[in-house]
Amino acid sequence: MRFVLVAGCTRTAEIDGISAAGADPTVMAHTPSADLEILEYGETALAPVVPVSPTGCPTPSVVTRAVRELVEFETLAVDAGLTSPTGAPTVTITEESGRDIRETRPVSAAAEAFESAKRLGRALPDDEIVIGETIPGGTTTALGVLTALGERTTVSSSLPENPLALKQDVVNEALAVSDLSAGETAGNPIETVRHVGDPVLATVAGITVGAVQSGTAVTLAGGTQQAAAAALVRHAGIEEPVSLATTSFIADDETAGIAKLAADLDLSLTVTDPKFDSRDHPAMNAYEAGEAKEGVGMGGALALADDADVTMAAVRDRIVDVYERLVDEEPRAKP
Amino acid sequence: MRFVLVAGCTRTAEIDGISAAGADPTVMAHTPSADLEILEYGETALAPVVPVSPTGCPTPSVVTRAVRELVEFETLAVDAGLTSPTGAPTVTITEESGRDIRETRPVSAAAEAFESAKRLGRALPDDEIVIGETIPGGTTTALGVLTALGERTTVSSSLPENPLALKQDVVNEALAVSDLSAGETAGNPIETVRHVGDPVLATVAGITVGAVQSGTAVTLAGGTQQAAAAALVRHAGIEEPVSLATTSFIADDETAGIAKLAADLDLSLTVTDPKFDSRDHPAMNAYEAGEAKEGVGMGGALALADDADVTMAAVRDRIVDVYERLVDEEPRAKP
Repeated sequence: MRFVLVAGCTRTAEIDGISAAGADPTVMAHTPSADLEILEYGETALAPVVPVSPTGCPTPSVVTRAVRELVEFETLAVDAGLTSPTGAPTVTITEESGRDIRETRPVSAAAEAFESAKRLGRALPDDEIVIGETIPGGTTTALGVLTALGERTTVSSSLPENPLALKQDVVNEALAVSDLSAGETAGNPIETVRHVGDPVLATVAGITVGAVQSGTAVTLAGGTQQAAAAALVRHAGIEEPVSLATTSFIADDETAGIAKLAADLDLSLTVTDPKFDSRDHPAMNAYEAGEAKEGVGMGGALALADDADVTMAAVRDRIVDVYERLVDEEPRAKP
Repeated sequence: MRFVLVAGCTRTAEIDGISAAGADPTVMAHTPSADLEILEYGETALAPVVPVSPTGCPTPSVVTRAVRELVEFETLAVDAGLTSPTGAPTVTITEESGRDIRETRPVSAAAEAFESAKRLGRALPDDEIVIGETIPGGTTTALGVLTALGERTTVSSSLPENPLALKQDVVNEALAVSDLSAGETAGNPIETVRHVGDPVLATVAGITVGAVQSGTAVTLAGGTQQAAAAALVRHAGIEEPVSLATTSFIADDETAGIAKLAADLDLSLTVTDPKFDSRDHPAMNAYEAGEAKEGVGMGGALALADDADVTMAAVRDRIVDVYERLVDEEPRAKP
């Protein structure tokens, strides 16, 4: 088993009110790069900041790293359009980050990214992979993809109050700019990503297609963004089994409609509850208040812990350790 | 502890008779990329070939991977000018591979690579790192560096008969083209690499300087190439302890003069003998016949096995396993 983390950026995230991933736009641009470092090293390396939301909620990579320290799974970090350097080793699928989907062709390298990701998925030697993602603004591009493909248009949010009307406005404007209507790119995943997606979605979908075709079992770890990636996989004609592993925070979010999305797309769904309500700690309270909910494959990581008979109490203890290490650390990248 | 593998290319390797790393120039260009994959996955991924010498000696990454499967150390792969894609995740220090040192400024990005590598070395969270290298033709550029710095000019070879006269001719021509005499760049590691080195030497030296300056203990794993990297570190003014871990094949090679080089450069030297003479197997016989000798941090990996109380018999058994897996495998990257 290998845990694959696909990281990238879309300028869609810079639209005011869209994302909680990072306290300000500068922090947001560093969030995916820092997430890769936290998963790899347990702390940041070249990233100049530790990603926390405006209210102090730490990045979900804290949770995924905590599980990794207990379960010791192997990882593969994938650069799908990062805008800031990372000190974590990556396979680069595309160096082009996504533009605002309200512009024409926000992912002009969609076809190359999808093909290159397919090759990587096919090349991996593992029997089983779990794929997570980190891209601020990703639920908005996911909504764009689900809409253009004609799938159920429910997406979650990293904010306690999902700015769904704002996201729908952005997606409608994106479709209009690309002269597309809802459902018009059904059966064409590359065109879908090119016009209303982001490079992380193209890469997650491509790796999944290549892996499944070469006999590797794939679990997509995440919420509605990974459901959108799965929709791209289904619209590429892949009928083999694909799993989706998410958190109870996503399952409890009615705006996410994750069970129905999973059923529509024939994904077997696993939901894991880390029982953060049993602890009073800043790294967990924010989730209970409805923030973050998912990301960096957190739901898949929790499921791996559960499969390995690691208790959620042990995971929670380790989350506290990782969090304290992160907030105490002197940024190494400071000059 | 983290095992760092720095991989790159120099066109110096294409000079006829210089290197055994790869049966022909095409294979040679893929060798460092394949070595990273073998260390990461235990088999190749995107690399289209399994690196073997003209006589069938497999790449030393087989040995390093075998130890990794027994000791389970963490790895960091570093791209220092690869010319072919790798499916292993890397931190990219420079995308510019080295030109033939008989041209002017064969490593024009020497300063940027050195600085970027220093930042990475400083950013690593580990108490201790072991650094290996893989670059065909690397002993010739090492000879160039040792000569330009005014250090002892002894280097080993991946061939049973070291083509030392050829290497000296190449280095003399390189110095002449750059209008330099032996010893002229003493105290200036960047100028040295720029005119007669390769990007891997700049990167190994830079990571070492950054790591040592931030309190991380460094072991350079390899033979005379890593001694040349250590010379660059000393000529950068670093006086802190640095270790060198190599194989008995290098120690037994009189042309390498490794003990004297280590003494000159104030490096504490560890030599490990994997006792390949006790087995009759193609993955080991070639070493006994004087081929390969070192590379991909093999000597450092053997020392790690020894430190972890893993017997050399267990290492030899695992080398056979890794070798069989590699030669049996259908290349995944084939279209």
